[in-house]
Amino acid sequence: MTSAKDALPKVLERIDSDLDRSLERLFAFLRLQSVSTDPAYADQCKAAADFVAKDLESLGLDAKVRPTSGHPVVVAKPRNGAAGNGPRVLFYGHYDVQPVDPLDLWKSPPFEPRIEQLPDGRKIIVARGACDDKGQLMTFVEACRAFKAVTGSLPLPTTVMIEGEEECGSKSLFPFVAEHADEFKLDMALVCDTGMWNATTPTVTTSLRGLVYEEVTVTCADRDLHSGLFGGAALNPIRVLNRILSAIHDENGHITIPGFYDGVPELPADIKADLAALKLTPEEFLGQVGLKTPAGEKDRMLIEQISTRPTCDVNGIVGGYVGEGAKTVIPSQATAKVSFRLVGDQNPERIRDAFRKFVRDRLPADCKVEFRNHACSAALQLPYDLPALVKARNALQEEWGNKAVTVGAGGSIPIVGDFKRLLGMDTIMVGFALDDDRVHSPNEKYDLTSFHKGTRSWARILAALAE
Amino acid sequence: MTSAKDALPKVLERIDSDLDRSLERLFAFLRLQSVSTDPAYADQCKAAADFVAKDLESLGLDAKVRPTSGHPVVVAKPRNGAAGNGPRVLFYGHYDVQPVDPLDLWKSPPFEPRIEQLPDGRKIIVARGACDDKGQLMTFVEACRAFKAVTGSLPLPTTVMIEGEEECGSKSLFPFVAEHADEFKLDMALVCDTGMWNATTPTVTTSLRGLVYEEVTVTCADRDLHSGLFGGAALNPIRVLNRILSAIHDENGHITIPGFYDGVPELPADIKADLAALKLTPEEFLGQVGLKTPAGEKDRMLIEQISTRPTCDVNGIVGGYVGEGAKTVIPSQATAKVSFRLVGDQNPERIRDAFRKFVRDRLPADCKVEFRNHACSAALQLPYDLPALVKARNALQEEWGNKAVTVGAGGSIPIVGDFKRLLGMDTIMVGFALDDDRVHSPNEKYDLTSFHKGTRSWARILAALAE
Repeated sequence: MTSAKDALPKVLERIDSDLDRSLERLFAFLRLQSVSTDPAYADQCKAAADFVAKDLESLGLDAKVRPTSGHPVVVAKPRNGAAGNGPRVLFYGHYDVQPVDPLDLWKSPPFEPRIEQLPDGRKIIVARGACDDKGQLMTFVEACRAFKAVTGSLPLPTTVMIEGEEECGSKSLFPFVAEHADEFKLDMALVCDTGMWNATTPTVTTSLRGLVYEEVTVTCADRDLHSGLFGGAALNPIRVLNRILSAIHDENGHITIPGFYDGVPELPADIKADLAALKLTPEEFLGQVGLKTPAGEKDRMLIEQISTRPTCDVNGIVGGYVGEGAKTVIPSQATAKVSFRLVGDQNPERIRDAFRKFVRDRLPADCKVEFRNHACSAALQLPYDLPALVKARNALQEEWGNKAVTVGAGGSIPIVGDFKRLLGMDTIMVGFALDDDRVHSPNEKYDLTSFHKGTRSWARILAALAE
Repeated sequence: MTSAKDALPKVLERIDSDLDRSLERLFAFLRLQSVSTDPAYADQCKAAADFVAKDLESLGLDAKVRPTSGHPVVVAKPRNGAAGNGPRVLFYGHYDVQPVDPLDLWKSPPFEPRIEQLPDGRKIIVARGACDDKGQLMTFVEACRAFKAVTGSLPLPTTVMIEGEEECGSKSLFPFVAEHADEFKLDMALVCDTGMWNATTPTVTTSLRGLVYEEVTVTCADRDLHSGLFGGAALNPIRVLNRILSAIHDENGHITIPGFYDGVPELPADIKADLAALKLTPEEFLGQVGLKTPAGEKDRMLIEQISTRPTCDVNGIVGGYVGEGAKTVIPSQATAKVSFRLVGDQNPERIRDAFRKFVRDRLPADCKVEFRNHACSAALQLPYDLPALVKARNALQEEWGNKAVTVGAGGSIPIVGDFKRLLGMDTIMVGFALDDDRVHSPNEKYDLTSFHKGTRSWARILAALAE
């Protein structure tokens, strides 16, 4: 039996020669209108699940469309137990897509995929799901297909799990994974749902920031008051909230809640040097949205502020009169939504409690406060020296010619946390999305290069992991 | 000719003996559905104007229903120029009333006035307008009627102006008064549209706080951002607003905007002593709305905080996501409505500009700010030693047996500012409304004692002013 590494050159050739047919398969997948949030598309979601199962069967896997309380999950496992040696991997992706509204902003119908050439010469695949996540997950599937064609089997014992509710919170997947934990407790997980640093710099996402999201409502008087009559004497809940929320950050952008930074790791020097070498400038990152000056911790690089450091933001605030014109009211209540992005080992429950204490400690005597928690999840951090991570970075560098960077993602892929906490598996997140892919927006696209070199990248990563 | 002072005992007797008929007249007035904000009631407004004009004719005045761009104004003037000696007074009131919604909360139809006896023995007149302003203005009219009955004429050269748009901002009255300034430039104005300190303490409203009302919108990024991606680096306009607005007040409740207190007078010692003697407690004033602790300037009495001191409040704030649940957005914009109550000689334009500078001085580099002004009016302050004020206070004390207090009103009567600025006239504001009159609300009422002793009070005031 040829080793995966020995077979790799032929596998890469096969990927190149099979590109047109792999695009045909992707386009067939993209034509399925698998919008998970809208019950009207339930049949199309089922059709997409069937499509994926059939395709995974063709890789020699034992694929089943398995019911959940919502849209089904496709699970494909090695026939006859472990096929081949090497680590048992679980590849995760999702066949569902975001809704297409507003439809009139699409230049062509969202479920009629097409190739377009941009003025700068780049070819792009345009369709809903072209990137998120159909195009991305097919880079992995096509890499497997090339191995199967060249060597007769997959290079690793591979389980594939493709769900249909990622765009609406994966709410059926959590209990499904918990219930069938034994099936999915493998050696590591692989995910292709993240992005590249830029079009030429391959990237492994090694951390996902956690999230604590609190809604805080301050009540002063038991009714709205007239500011002419009560102004000057009655406590104003907007002013109370303003004062407390503005105390969360100090002049240097640090968060002042006691204990907030407990569990925040310092970066290893080499990783910090790598990040610095990216030379992310405010012009480049903030310029795109009309800003110039990083607003975070003053003693941190911009790239740290957005990826490896914890943050706090007020995501919403409302109180009093907010209609047209003027009303001289002192409201009874004001509400704010406050969220924290967590990193490292920050404990979300402890931070939620510390925030609540911070607010209560600053509350004037005449106030009541109520809290509602909307999210309380810890950060995920891959050890930088994890062997699989090192292998993936090297494989990516071979394909792209540039050193692969490791970044922290601000957003989250809900199930990845459960892979770690419930199944004890680390997840290698490699993706080929670009910042201009218009994910979740009209005219979503995926660069043809992302698709093609993404497939080649997975072939290299699988070969490296099989060593 | 009998002097007004000599005639007073008989005039008061006449008021007592005529009480039932004066109530019949008031009830006829209250039956007219003169809701000024709703065009459906235009005919009823006209009917109310006609009613008032006819009634004022019966006092021997030359009354006309005069058109404006909106509802008409009733103007009644002395026939043959000045009737009698003494200061020429302009009495102002309004025949329009607030809408009656929600109708189902009324215990009896709002335009079917009735007398009710409360469990504590008080008799009240229940109807829309019973207090504001039909009941109140009729106390003045009935006092004049009693003088006419007893002496054959009014005690002072009296012009009466009863408008029909006070409840919707007096917008036609301002140009009407400006255009006919010569007719109304008299010696002083009298208004009966204010309240009593409590049911036994007569009150002259000697100041109206001014109002500067600003809407401030802070814009950071040119679009809403995802806090996962941009959190930590992107400036958040809610946080910018929080920080700036919470800097307006210091720890002692003083306003820190430079120059804000310019023109704020210290109270004369005797007036301050009068206020202190009222012994207004937080329990009494704030307890009614569920509060305990005065939240204003720590070195001021509660009664000063709410009447004679300037204030600042945030009347509304909105930014980011304010719906159900969580959205991790960093908004592009946040908006607050901020108002200032002014006293003494505070200059509203200067305070508006100082506020704008205060905000701009604290604005981070990446922010834009826009301001919209919704109000910019100066306070009105009657000199405490104005002879007419002293006479009115003494007359009130004679009627009620208790010393008349002078208070500052938090709200405003729009036209009174123009009487001062445009016509150069001070206004003596005496009224008999009580805190529980439910003005603007269902089941509006006016105490029979307010109506009866209010009428007697005006008779005494007119006699005193005629001295």
